[in-house]
Amino acid sequence: MATALGYHAEPRPGKLEISITKPCATQQQLSLAYSPGVSVPVGAIVADPEAVYRYTAKGNLVAVITDGSAVLGLGNTGPLASKPVMEGKAVLFKSFAGLDAIDIEVEAESPEAFVDTVARISPTFGGINLEDIAAPHCFMIEQALIERLDIPVLHDDQHGTAITIAAALQNALELQGKSLPEARIVCVGAGAAGIATLRLLVALGLDQENILLVDRQGVIREESQAPHSYCRPFISSSPKRTLEEAIEGADVFIGVAAPNLLTMEMLKSMASRPIVFALSNPDPEIDPGLAHAARDDLILATGRTDYPNQVNNVLVFPFLFRAALNVRARCINDAMKLAAVRALVELTKEPVPKQVLEAYGEQQLAFGANYILPKPLDPRLREFVTMAITQAAIESGIARI
Amino acid sequence: MATALGYHAEPRPGKLEISITKPCATQQQLSLAYSPGVSVPVGAIVADPEAVYRYTAKGNLVAVITDGSAVLGLGNTGPLASKPVMEGKAVLFKSFAGLDAIDIEVEAESPEAFVDTVARISPTFGGINLEDIAAPHCFMIEQALIERLDIPVLHDDQHGTAITIAAALQNALELQGKSLPEARIVCVGAGAAGIATLRLLVALGLDQENILLVDRQGVIREESQAPHSYCRPFISSSPKRTLEEAIEGADVFIGVAAPNLLTMEMLKSMASRPIVFALSNPDPEIDPGLAHAARDDLILATGRTDYPNQVNNVLVFPFLFRAALNVRARCINDAMKLAAVRALVELTKEPVPKQVLEAYGEQQLAFGANYILPKPLDPRLREFVTMAITQAAIESGIARI
Repeated sequence: MATALGYHAEPRPGKLEISITKPCATQQQLSLAYSPGVSVPVGAIVADPEAVYRYTAKGNLVAVITDGSAVLGLGNTGPLASKPVMEGKAVLFKSFAGLDAIDIEVEAESPEAFVDTVARISPTFGGINLEDIAAPHCFMIEQALIERLDIPVLHDDQHGTAITIAAALQNALELQGKSLPEARIVCVGAGAAGIATLRLLVALGLDQENILLVDRQGVIREESQAPHSYCRPFISSSPKRTLEEAIEGADVFIGVAAPNLLTMEMLKSMASRPIVFALSNPDPEIDPGLAHAARDDLILATGRTDYPNQVNNVLVFPFLFRAALNVRARCINDAMKLAAVRALVELTKEPVPKQVLEAYGEQQLAFGANYILPKPLDPRLREFVTMAITQAAIESGIARI
Repeated sequence: MATALGYHAEPRPGKLEISITKPCATQQQLSLAYSPGVSVPVGAIVADPEAVYRYTAKGNLVAVITDGSAVLGLGNTGPLASKPVMEGKAVLFKSFAGLDAIDIEVEAESPEAFVDTVARISPTFGGINLEDIAAPHCFMIEQALIERLDIPVLHDDQHGTAITIAAALQNALELQGKSLPEARIVCVGAGAAGIATLRLLVALGLDQENILLVDRQGVIREESQAPHSYCRPFISSSPKRTLEEAIEGADVFIGVAAPNLLTMEMLKSMASRPIVFALSNPDPEIDPGLAHAARDDLILATGRTDYPNQVNNVLVFPFLFRAALNVRARCINDAMKLAAVRALVELTKEPVPKQVLEAYGEQQLAFGANYILPKPLDPRLREFVTMAITQAAIESGIARI
């Protein structure tokens, strides 16, 4: 605790600074950086708006924008208190993908006001990463901004998470000798991550009939029970009502909800060779040690760094934006998201370089029950995943350069 | 022209980047920068909002915000094309005062929408520099934001310019053996700079009766002639109607308007020992060489670097924000602005260090007709001006640390 505070406070508060990339010590240099020299690029952009990408930082600049309504597992902290998280996200953008990212905390009285605000400041940026916005508003907000803006907008809590889960799940299913179209899946949590993950898994071939979406009230079986309309495609016609009933015989548990809600009895009632993604952070839906002790045919993933199989969306979001900005894509489309899933699935099966083993103090890492996703500090990610996404952007016709 | 474009384009577009200030190469460091470690400062800020200044970059972060409605002398270029200018302003904040500054270009459908937008994103920043916003909206916008926010908000085109002009004018009047309360002043230009300058000069003792405010229609003599209500205090009861009539016998001409509107005949008709501030940029209201040739009792200032007496608000705005953020002032009040004027007046009279002479290739610079303001690259400015403003903030009771 003291360490985290010290890290953020010393030697200067926070984690970001704005640096100057051009020489500006002499009067002549200053007259290029500012008046009168700066009027030349201004004129060039007036004549051709695309020139803004040649003469300003826009093309490499991502805004990390939140309303502070769903910050980490802490809930609605408000915008001010979310600032350390948003700065942290900007740090990840820079260190994983070389993208300049700045946090913007928005105090908005309504989702519509939030959308208007982000849209109005959007000329500043090359892309917009929405972060830690509560469901269900996050769905409407992202959709509205995608429709209004011609730069990529992505709510990472939805898609970064969904893509990482989808890649991990495909690998886990392969290892367990199962297939996505036939897998029976229980997803606990009908927020941003849960809904986006189910949408993506359906796009990848999961049968809608095989999904049981569970929230605090139990299995969502009727429209009236659903916390919001985005649950609609996942309303179940099954007679099962409780998580306990839902989990029995299930192949896959995806928890994006709250600590310790998957009991040992529930785990034992799952199908053979089960897959459990207990992604509540920092405390998972089930204790990893006890879970493995209870079932030795289990593949388990968490959101934690101190267990194998960390589902961490840093495997995805830096490269989605890196690729989108590299080719100036007008949005991040489904083809790009599916390409990211495939790239992660494939990279997991490649031999792991020695420097990754050293970074994690591991003797060995190879595709298997304890290695269903690449490690975040794997330096191959940036090129491999970015290339795959870039290719998809170009092939799907949304690249502008 | 090619130079300015090359400077902005190479080796990478623009003039700013976002840098990481904390180590974040290892898994352990990343877990401090982001989840789970980052939840500790979030909790601290939830408990005490002031902690945001200890654990985030907010306290040193200034937003340079525009709607692109009055960009340099180019007019309403729109927000996108203003980006090189705003980035340039951010460069000045960093290089002159060590402040991290980021540009925000706002596409707003109305002044109210602009105000709402800036207010909503304000939790992000320690201070807000409004830039290149057209009159008369700039007055309402600044006032509304000052009232709504508890961080300093300043429209630099008003106050940075006014303070610099006021300091230069006090020095020039002293050199000409005149006094502000008795000076007869013609101000051409009823925009942000003109109105703010006249307001400040009145606060410093200028007699409202001695002001003739002139716009394209001539001397503003009746409410119906005034382009906006902020001219009201400066409506003249004089019978003079044209600039030609107004300038006759005037002690001071302040031009913040357009090139070449002060003719040689007008200059010759001014009082003895006249003062001409021809600040239109890059082309002044009168040609400096011809003006000096016409009157050898003249003190002349321009906005240009290639003539003596450059009126450049970089002498002021970096230090207004440096001081305000140093003591976490809730606003930038009149006491701070007046302190800035005094500091510039005083510093001009101090002996100029050798390194300043070298930076400008001058043999000598001393208080006199060709040196009525410090030079922008004078390294004493930062401490001297900042200290004076800080002192005023503390004494006027608006410092919070």
